[in-house]
This record gives sequence, structure tokens and C-alpha cells, in this order.
Amino acid sequence: MVGYGFMGAAHSQGWRVAPRFFELAATPEMTVLVGRDATRVATAAERWGWAETSTDWRETIARDDIDVVDIVTPGDSHAEIAIAALDAGKHVLCEKPLANSVAEAEAMAAAADRAAAHGVRAMVGFTYRRVPAVTFARDLVAAGRIGAVRQVRAQYLQDWLRDADSPMTWRLDKELAGSGSLGDIGAHAVDLAQFITGTRLASVSGVLETLVPERPLLADARGLSGTASTERGRVTVDDVALFTGRFDDGVLGTFEASRFATGRKNALRIEVSGSTGALAFDLEDLNALEFFDGTAEATTQGFTKILVTEPEHPYVGAWWPAGHMLGYEHGFSHQARDFVEAVAAGEQPRPSFADGLQVQRVLAAVERSSAEGSAWTAV
Amino acid sequence: MVGYGFMGAAHSQGWRVAPRFFELAATPEMTVLVGRDATRVATAAERWGWAETSTDWRETIARDDIDVVDIVTPGDSHAEIAIAALDAGKHVLCEKPLANSVAEAEAMAAAADRAAAHGVRAMVGFTYRRVPAVTFARDLVAAGRIGAVRQVRAQYLQDWLRDADSPMTWRLDKELAGSGSLGDIGAHAVDLAQFITGTRLASVSGVLETLVPERPLLADARGLSGTASTERGRVTVDDVALFTGRFDDGVLGTFEASRFATGRKNALRIEVSGSTGALAFDLEDLNALEFFDGTAEATTQGFTKILVTEPEHPYVGAWWPAGHMLGYEHGFSHQARDFVEAVAAGEQPRPSFADGLQVQRVLAAVERSSAEGSAWTAV
Amino acid sequence: MVGYGFMGAAHSQGWRVAPRFFELAATPEMTVLVGRDATRVATAAERWGWAETSTDWRETIARDDIDVVDIVTPGDSHAEIAIAALDAGKHVLCEKPLANSVAEAEAMAAAADRAAAHGVRAMVGFTYRRVPAVTFARDLVAAGRIGAVRQVRAQYLQDWLRDADSPMTWRLDKELAGSGSLGDIGAHAVDLAQFITGTRLASVSGVLETLVPERPLLADARGLSGTASTERGRVTVDDVALFTGRFDDGVLGTFEASRFATGRKNALRIEVSGSTGALAFDLEDLNALEFFDGTAEATTQGFTKILVTEPEHPYVGAWWPAGHMLGYEHGFSHQARDFVEAVAAGEQPRPSFADGLQVQRVLAAVERSSAEGSAWTAV
Amino acid sequence: MVGYGFMGAAHSQGWRVAPRFFELAATPEMTVLVGRDATRVATAAERWGWAETSTDWRETIARDDIDVVDIVTPGDSHAEIAIAALDAGKHVLCEKPLANSVAEAEAMAAAADRAAAHGVRAMVGFTYRRVPAVTFARDLVAAGRIGAVRQVRAQYLQDWLRDADSPMTWRLDKELAGSGSLGDIGAHAVDLAQFITGTRLASVSGVLETLVPERPLLADARGLSGTASTERGRVTVDDVALFTGRFDDGVLGTFEASRFATGRKNALRIEVSGSTGALAFDLEDLNALEFFDGTAEATTQGFTKILVTEPEHPYVGAWWPAGHMLGYEHGFSHQARDFVEAVAAGEQPRPSFADGLQVQRVLAAVERSSAEGSAWTAV
Repeated sequence: MVGYGFMGAAHSQGWRVAPRFFELAATPEMTVLVGRDATRVATAAERWGWAETSTDWRETIARDDIDVVDIVTPGDSHAEIAIAALDAGKHVLCEKPLANSVAEAEAMAAAADRAAAHGVRAMVGFTYRRVPAVTFARDLVAAGRIGAVRQVRAQYLQDWLRDADSPMTWRLDKELAGSGSLGDIGAHAVDLAQFITGTRLASVSGVLETLVPERPLLADARGLSGTASTERGRVTVDDVALFTGRFDDGVLGTFEASRFATGRKNALRIEVSGSTGALAFDLEDLNALEFFDGTAEATTQGFTKILVTEPEHPYVGAWWPAGHMLGYEHGFSHQARDFVEAVAAGEQPRPSFADGLQVQRVLAAVERSSAEGSAWTAV
Repeated sequence: MVGYGFMGAAHSQGWRVAPRFFELAATPEMTVLVGRDATRVATAAERWGWAETSTDWRETIARDDIDVVDIVTPGDSHAEIAIAALDAGKHVLCEKPLANSVAEAEAMAAAADRAAAHGVRAMVGFTYRRVPAVTFARDLVAAGRIGAVRQVRAQYLQDWLRDADSPMTWRLDKELAGSGSLGDIGAHAVDLAQFITGTRLASVSGVLETLVPERPLLADARGLSGTASTERGRVTVDDVALFTGRFDDGVLGTFEASRFATGRKNALRIEVSGSTGALAFDLEDLNALEFFDGTAEATTQGFTKILVTEPEHPYVGAWWPAGHMLGYEHGFSHQARDFVEAVAAGEQPRPSFADGLQVQRVLAAVERSSAEGSAWTAV
Repeated sequence: MVGYGFMGAAHSQGWRVAPRFFELAATPEMTVLVGRDATRVATAAERWGWAETSTDWRETIARDDIDVVDIVTPGDSHAEIAIAALDAGKHVLCEKPLANSVAEAEAMAAAADRAAAHGVRAMVGFTYRRVPAVTFARDLVAAGRIGAVRQVRAQYLQDWLRDADSPMTWRLDKELAGSGSLGDIGAHAVDLAQFITGTRLASVSGVLETLVPERPLLADARGLSGTASTERGRVTVDDVALFTGRFDDGVLGTFEASRFATGRKNALRIEVSGSTGALAFDLEDLNALEFFDGTAEATTQGFTKILVTEPEHPYVGAWWPAGHMLGYEHGFSHQARDFVEAVAAGEQPRPSFADGLQVQRVLAAVERSSAEGSAWTAV
Repeated sequence: MVGYGFMGAAHSQGWRVAPRFFELAATPEMTVLVGRDATRVATAAERWGWAETSTDWRETIARDDIDVVDIVTPGDSHAEIAIAALDAGKHVLCEKPLANSVAEAEAMAAAADRAAAHGVRAMVGFTYRRVPAVTFARDLVAAGRIGAVRQVRAQYLQDWLRDADSPMTWRLDKELAGSGSLGDIGAHAVDLAQFITGTRLASVSGVLETLVPERPLLADARGLSGTASTERGRVTVDDVALFTGRFDDGVLGTFEASRFATGRKNALRIEVSGSTGALAFDLEDLNALEFFDGTAEATTQGFTKILVTEPEHPYVGAWWPAGHMLGYEHGFSHQARDFVEAVAAGEQPRPSFADGLQVQRVLAAVERSSAEGSAWTAV
């Protein structure tokens, strides 16, 4: 695994826990943790349970005893590592967003195509697809339980930048992060909307906005934020992204990504209105899915709050008895499981790099639209 | 109408508004408002729209042009007025609780029986039965939509006595009010549980408690409370009533009435668990009914929040288009409508005085059980 | 009052009930109901409690004993009647939207200005401002309780057109209704957003869409809908309106109006994110306001569900004791009260015709933006 | 660890994951898994990550390299194993309920006392104390944020026995399980109520009921249930337990444990009403705590839904960034951490065996009260 920040912890937990709850075709071994700073990477490896460490990812991907490379670095290094790993015949799991630019993402998707010809697999980590309630939402749509999709509303609302004096982090620097709310959290909203409906955004009209353009520089990182220094730096990414999109079947969707939605901590929400039903999900209530069945008797129609915690629901049977809640990191176990199973079966794990590239193109189209007065822009 | 406090306002609104939204067999005329204090009753009559006033209810019920007597005084005067009115051949609507003692309630039920022989009708005002969501809950149980009733949970939670320095009112004086939380609000919980399940409590085990036994006397009444004087008086009724009851079909129910449930303003709640489904209602969300259909496909089961605001729901079609919320006082219009329709049709309006007497007997059994160490006590 | 449909019933209820609960400077008398069909207007007058009827609104506004004209007809006749009434020296309450075109609305606002010079008042009926939770939200923003407004999200979601076979009504005919979701319900979202934040939309970028372009013609009207004939007609208004707006202080807001939001019956929702707090309201839970206080201790922050049912809240003290729910039509009593009080005090009631005109301009800008590829369009 | 059912999986996950997220004074090693069936225990050990297996717990606790014995067997074997382990100088973590009888629990508490004299520690596994929202609720009460406790409502509602044809399991056999809903889930409600309020139940009045007295025998166990055989057996434990309790400070609480609460999957709920505030928690929404602050300004009072997912909340800082949800099993990591830290610090971990014994006495008092017509019974 290359990288060991927040996502490194989450992926490690996925690799460690997945084989305890799922019957896997192959058991993952947590071999090498790679990072630039030898001391830090050693500490992280002990913390997160990796057997060895390295400061040279090229050396690591050259090793014969390494089959899988998991990339959890910031987006600016994804392309170089992923392409090298794929070309070296390693299966790759790469955290989202696939890359910081469409060009990089295209190169990665091309590398994934080349690799696939030799049975080498690449997958991008849109983990929220694997929250059981989300997977189940997709299943209900696919089974026609809401009829034809008519409208989509997707939001990812957080508020951790609400304080204008909270400091800069790499997530606010366009060079490192590629984009702001749009790429960091809006990408999840896009992926979820496309995943659940089974369609793809074809064109968008949107606006990006930086509400607080200058912030104190970061003295010391902690979690997603840290303590402030006295110097100030420029925020070069968007704080808020608002856009309307048209899917390839003509359906309209509205999208918002914000880190200034005061009081909303992790509200990835999606509502899909169909001709005979509707679905609503909120990550702040991640074990539940709201389902409206418009084919039920008129008097008893309403949104049903399904606790997606029963053995019959996706992934859930592997965990606890009925009615026991799962948390954020369970998605990483589900991801690890699905990746291992697909690789073992010689199948393409989803979302593929091509899927990740398509999300990247949506984000790029939103940026272009914003730059051109919200003109409708093809993806 | 005799009396003109909070309930007087509510009943007046019911009589005034019902004929505007429902087709009634007879149109109520708001003729005489009766009270002890001539000045006050005159003010109230103008405020609430009564044509005349009187300080002598006996005189009023003797009038030939009066067909209906509506009693909204405190419980200690219900029996005398209601019996006289029935004996005078007037149809009677009497606010709950029917009386302050079982003996009085028995006399009233007997008078109602006598009167019924001449086509004169009596009804007690458990208005919450006529909240559309409650009526609909009853309908669903009756239609077998939750199977056999297995358990009942009923609560009426308020917090207006939470402040130990809020003053005495007539509702805290056993002489006037008969009982405290038990009779004032617990009675509603009992009536609702029996109404929705279609069964009756046969025995109870409970405890009554006065949490704040002394309070400042009331200097000036306002709403349900008022401003405090410097003198203190004894609270002679219960603040909290907790009891378990066994219905005549053997089902167990739990009941709580409290005016000390901090933060709960008007939470009359009932949950009925059945063999194939369940229902839950909360008056603080009075337009909604939660319904769990255990016969639905396993994966999509959950509590459905039904907005009981559609034309197909009880009473609702008479009001606004779909999706428009009703409020507290609509129940009084529904009550006025049902009373008028039953009287016009020569039928017994429900709840009858016999129904009210039975609730009174439940309350009395709870009091006896509490006095005898929560021993199970037949109703 | 001119007109007697759904809005006629609601306004009648407001006039009838307001003086029972509020001390008014003048008591409204419900004198003449005006409509084109003599038989129907007579039936409606009896139903809704008007003393006389007329089929000629010009004659009625000429009467000396008429002080106020309340206009509840479809939008295409608002301008003619309102201007005539104002010019005749009658105070006017006109249901929203003010008119079907900006030109008409401008003429109306000009007439209102002329009339104001003689102490004659005009008001437009955006009743939802007077839901206590909404008025209270405005008060909290004005008091600085959420700091500087940073983002606004407003939606009005209904689903009564979800069925592609539900028939045409005048609300789907551009000639009569002016616009579809945008003007009918989107107008409320715009008014609420502006009312609560105290700012005005300066420019918009949006898209209108008709999801079901042909429907059966209406055989017989009932409620907002009716039964279908075998012939089909063209829907000439929008089913869905999506737009982003920039307020005059630079804040961005997102707006949606839809009659295809399956399962949402009357979900007028608004969320305002501020620098130190946030507010969220949903008309489907009209007695509640969600308030996030970002200045509270970090560990106890969260959205507080305020039951706006206490005597201290706007309008509520006039009704029932604490904790008793109000319904949809109470807003019409509040409107009647505020109108009467403003007129009696010689003050301009709000929202004024100028306010209504400004909303109309927003709607027109959205239409233009939609026609021009969602280009940003000044209001 | 002795035992490897549902609780074995949960405890294993706790031991495995705790050291990855918390800095522990000592790192747990998962050495031996003990069970009666050699084949099954070997499978379980591989699944849950234990290095060795044994079919003889006596042999295992005699080993010098074993410091801690974790007991997750059914309640009938707790006493024998725990006492032997403590006497052998091993620290013991024992799953709740402490034992199947008060006599056994007393012997265990005595053994724990003896062991404590030598620095050997014993703890009982009421894991739900360590859900962050529950720990935080305790903190708020202790800090006086709700004033004096006035009332407690505690429920544990499940519905997995709702189907009268679902088969017998060891949980329905009094010999193995000790009691039914009362001991299995009611024990959690008792522990939580006492933990959060910091008081203990002194007397109780209650009733136990078996709603379905005969069920098919179990052919094959799966999760908490399994498939049915054609033979039938007698349910010898309670399906529903209802009781009222008086705490040692005089406060009254109501309690319910039910496995027939249709639609409720894992609803461990507690509401504490205090003189100046209130708290409400529901395990089905385990990342949230509802808090009513009665000292706030009157107009903005209401229940605040606190997402207990911020770094400032108990345990949460060790996991993910703000706003990320935890699940059921995180409590087992918290338990492992607290146990290790207390043992390392030479302190008594809580809940102690004495705490477990006291809960056992409450359960026994409820059983006696039920047998004696709900008479008030001292704990």
C-alpha cells in the first residue's frame, strides 16, 4: 500500500477485517507500506499492521511477492504509481478521485485496458457504493421497483471549512488536490447517482465558488484539518460546487457539494424519484434507506425507513445478527472483498478505471461550465 | 355550551367550522353560552361567537329552542349538568373525563341509557380518536393489517409542570380535577389504546406519584398555567401515572402519563405490535402514522411514515387538497360532525357515556392498585 | 372576494377564524362572493359563509359598503381586477402569483403605488411566510443567530403529476396559469428564501422541463385534479424547474420546484447555512423548525428540532396552550390578521405588490435563462 | 477466549482492532480459542484469528503464558470458568449476563473480590455502555446538564420471535439462558439506566409473559435463529418483561424488554427526564444522542440531535475524521481498550462483577415480583 493518511487507515482496516467476515478466494497479506518519510512510514506500518516498509514505491512494485498495489496517496501521484504498477503486472486498487486531471485519468484507463489483456485488474475506490443501503438502492432501481427514473437529487454536505479561520490543508491546494468540494466529495455524489440509476451524466451546467479565499497556513496536520500558523495562503479550490446534469437517458439531476453546509457533518444524500416509486439515502443515517412504493395501496403509501441491517441485504449477512448497525469503515471491507473476488475470478472489478475516468470527465465538464457562465457542457 | 375555558374555545371552533367543510344533516346554531360570571361569559360569547349568554345552566337547558348541550366545565360539575340536560331531553356532548368519580360516571351512563330510550343521545369528548391518523390506525387494526394484537405501548408525555415553581391550577386540585396526569391525559391514552385495538382493559397494576407536592398558588390564570403568588398550596393529584394493563383478550399494555417529561410538549404516543405488523402514532406529528407491514417482502420491510393527508384517509377529503396538514382543532370539527350525524341518524354517537364510564373505571382501578402496592386490580 | 376555488375556501376560513383568536382593530365582514356562474357562486357562498353573491366583480367593487377586495381567481385575471379595485379605493389582497406576466405585475405594482398615496393598501398572498416556524426562522436570521448567510437551499416538492395519465387542469395551461411548477410552487420557494434571508435574488441560471408533455383532458374537476376524458391536450407549462440564484449580497442559492417528486406531498423545504448556525424547515412538518447553533459548546451541537408551538413563538400565543399543533389554514388567519392590522394602522402590509412583482421578475428571469441554455440572467 | 458464537466473533473483533486505533499500555495477543468441539473450534480459530485451540478450558487457564480469560459461552457456564480463572490469577472479561442465577453471580463477585486483593481484575461485558452516545449521555448527566433526574424510560425492543413458527434456540431454554428477554436484553436496559443516571434500582414491580409457549425445535442453528424441525418444544423463558423500578434516590423508571415488538430490530432506547433537561438514545440510531436543554432560551428549546461523531466525544477521536459513523462492534474495541488500560493501571475495570451481580439481583427481583402478582420487591 502506498500512502498512510486517513485513507491508509481505512484501507488497512478493510484488508485486515474482510477475511474475518467474508469467505475469500484468496487471503490478503498486508506486506509492505510505502511512504516518503522512513520514520513516519515505520510508525504507520506498526500502527496499521503492515509487515514491512519502504520509501521507494518503484522498488516495491518490482517485487515478485507483491500481487496487489493499493494507492492511497493524494491525487497528484495516482497516475504515475498506478500506471507503473499495472505495467509491472500488479493488480491495482486506487483511491478516488482517479487523478487530478482528465489527461492523467485517460492514461490510467489506457494502462488498465492494457493490463486487463493480461488478466491484471484495476479498480477505483468509490467506497460508498458498498454501503449496504446504497447497493440495495441500486438493486431496487435495477429491479424496477421505482419504475422509470424521473429525477435525481444528490448532495454531499459537510461543514468542516465553516470557520473562516480554520487553516489550509493539502485539500485546499489545487496543485495537490486537483479540485475542492467538487472532486473530494462531489465526485462521490456523481458516482452514487450514476451507480444507483445505472446511467451516466452526458452534460452539465454548474457553478463553483470559493467562499473563503484566504486562510491561515497549516502549522501541524491533524485529521482532515490541524492547527493554524500566523501566515495566510490562498485557497485555490472550490468550497461549493452546484450543478445540474442531464443523464444519457435525458433525466435531469441536481448536484451540490459543500464544505460550508453548517451543521451537516457527512451528509452524502441522494434521492431518486421514479415513475412508480422513490428512494432516499443519507450517509448520516447509513444503515437506513427510505423507499416509497407508489404501487402500494393509496392509503398506506409513504416513505418506508428500511433498516438495511438484515441478512437478506447486500453484504450484511456476513456481519452480525439482524438489526446490528454497521459503520463507515465496513465499506472498505466490502471493497476489499469485492476486489479480491473479482481478481480471483478473472473479472473486471467495478468501478473500473474507465468508470473513474468518466467521473473525472464529469468534474472537468463542471469546471468548464462554471468558467463559461454555467453554459451546458458535454461530458 | 356550558363553560368557556380552553375546551370552550376548541368546541366553539368545532361547531363553527364543521358545517363549512362537511355536509351535515343539520346545521348547528351557536345559541347560548353559559357561565357563572356574567361579565366574563359575555366577553367569551362575543369572542367565540355565541348569540346569547346566561349564568344559569338550568334555565338554559329548559329552553325549547335548545337541542344540544355541550359541557366543557371542569369535571366536578359534569354529572349534575349532563344528567339534568339528558333528563330534559337534550342531546349532550360532554368533555372528558366523563366525571371525577366512578359513582358520578355511573349515574351519567344510567341517565344516558334512560335518554336513549327516547332517542336522546349522549357522547363524551375523547377528541383524539378523530385525529385522522388515529382513526386510520383503528381502521388498519380492524382490517387485520397488523394481524393479532400482541402488545400495546401508550404514553401521554407533557412537561408543563417541569418547573417546581410553576403555580397551582385547578388541574392540580383533586376536588376540581378528580385526578392529575392520570385523568387529564392518561385518560386519552387509555381511550386511544382501547379505540385502536377494539378491546378493553380488564385489570391493571400501577403506581401514581406526585413529584412536586407543594407549589405557589395561582395569582392569575393564563393558558393551562398562569403567574404565581407568594403563598403555597398542596398538589393533591398525581404528576406521573405508570401502569401495566391487561386487555380482555389477554394482551398486555404499558401506560404512562406524565407532566414532567422534560422536552415533550404534547406527546400522546401509541404503538401497537401485532403478529404481522405494527403501528405507531405521536400527536406531536399528528398528520403522520407509522405502519410496519410484516407481510411485505423481507428486504423492503420497515416503518412507513404515512402522511395521513390524502383524500382517501378518514375525514381528510373534506378539507384541503392532498398533502395539506391539519392541526389540533380539526378533531373538534370531526367530533361536531360525527355527533350531528349520529343524532340526525338516530344512532348512538361514540364514545358513549358507557365508554366514558369504562375509562373512568380503568382510572379508578389504577388508583386502587397504586394504593395497594401495585397489586393487580380488576377494572 | 372574487373566486371560490381551493384558495377561496382557504381565504374564507382565514377571514372567519382570525377575529375569533386575534384581537383585531377591525372585524372583517364576509359580504359578497363573486364568480362567473351564478348557481355555483351561490352554492359556494353558502358553503363558505358569504352573505351575498354577484357575477359582476366590477359592480361589487363599485359598492360603497365594500372596503376590501380579496382576489383568489387564476392568475390571468389578477391584474384587471386588482387595478380596478385599487383605483376604486378598495384595499386589495391578491393571491399569488401576483400575475401571469411581468408586464401585468408592473401595472399592478404601479396601481398599488398610486393607491398607497391615498392610504389604500395592496398585499399579495404568500401565506407560507406566516407559518409560525417560517416567521420564526426569519426572526432568528434577523437576530444574527446563524451569523452571515452563506448558502440557501430551497425546494418545493410535490408529486401529484407523477401519474402520466392524470388529466390536464388549468394549472397545466400556460394561458391560464402563467407557468407550471415554477410559478405555482417555485414562487413560494423564492418568496420564502428572500423573506427569511432578507435579501433578494439578483440573477439566476436555470432550466425548465416538461416531463409529460401530453395528458388526457379533464372531464370533471376535483381538488387540484379530477377525472380524465379520452381526448388529450398539451401541457404548456413546466413540470420541473431547477435553478441556481445569486442574491444581491452575493450568496448562492439552489432552487427546485417539482410536481414529480414521487412521495413528496407538500415538501416546501428551505435550509439556510450561516457562518455560525443554520436553519431547516419542511412544510410537511410545519410545526417544527430545525436550528443548528454553531456557537454552542462543541460536544452538544446538533440540529435542534424546535416545536414552534409555544406562546413565545410568532402568532402561536393566540391559539391553543403550549404544544398544540397548527395546520395548513392557520396561515390564512395570520394573513387576514396582518392585513387588517396593517390597513387599520395605515401601514403597508407585506408582501406588497412590489414584493410580488420582484418574485415575478425572478420567475421571468428563470424562464429566459432556461430558454438561453441556462445563461446567467439578471432579475 | 472460551466460546466462539456471535459474542466470540464480536470480542475477537474488539481484541484485533482496538490496538490499531488506540494507544494501549499493553498489546493483546489472541492466543487460544477454547470450545468443546475440536473441529468447530479449529474452524472458528482460523476465522476469528486465534493462534491455537483447545477443548479444555481448565488446561488453558493453567498456562503461564495466558494473562486474560475472555468468557463468551452461554450463561450457565460463566461461574465455573470465571471463578477458576480468577483463582488461577487470570484477569477475566465475562460476557453478560454475569450468570444464570444470583447465587452463581454472588460466588463470582466473591471470587473477583479475592482476586482483586492480588491485583487480578474481573469485568462484565455490558458493551453498550461504550457506545459513544451512551458514554456521552452519562457524562452530561454527571455534569448536571439535565439537572436532577426525575424519570427514566428504558426499553429494549426486538422482533425476532415475532413469527410463532420460528424455532427454539438455547436462548429460549431457561436451563441454558437463565431467562428470556429479561436477562438477554432487559439486562442491557437496566445496566444502561443505572450507568447513565449513576443510581441503582432498589425495588421493582413487574410482570413476565411468554406469548408463544411452544415452538418447533431447532434443526440447524444460524445467527440468532435457524431452521425448524417438525418436533415442538416448550419455551421456558419470558418473551416480554415489563416492570417499573424505583431507584435508590426515589426516582421511578419504566422498563420493557420484548422480542415481539414488531418492526423494532434492535431498539435499545433510554430517555432520562431531568429537572432542567432530558436525554434520549436509541441504538437503532447509535451515532446520535437527543439532548433537550431546558436552560436555553425558551423560543429555541427543543431536542437537539447530536451526532456523537466528533473528536471531542468519548472514544471517537481514535477513529475517523469528524462525521464518520461507527457501528455495533466498535463498542467491543472500546471495551477491550478500557479493560487493558484498567488492568495495566492496576485499577478496577467497570462494570465490575459486583456491578454485574447487582443487575442480576434486579432481574431476580423482577422474576419474584412477577410471580407474586407484581408486588413491589426489594432488589
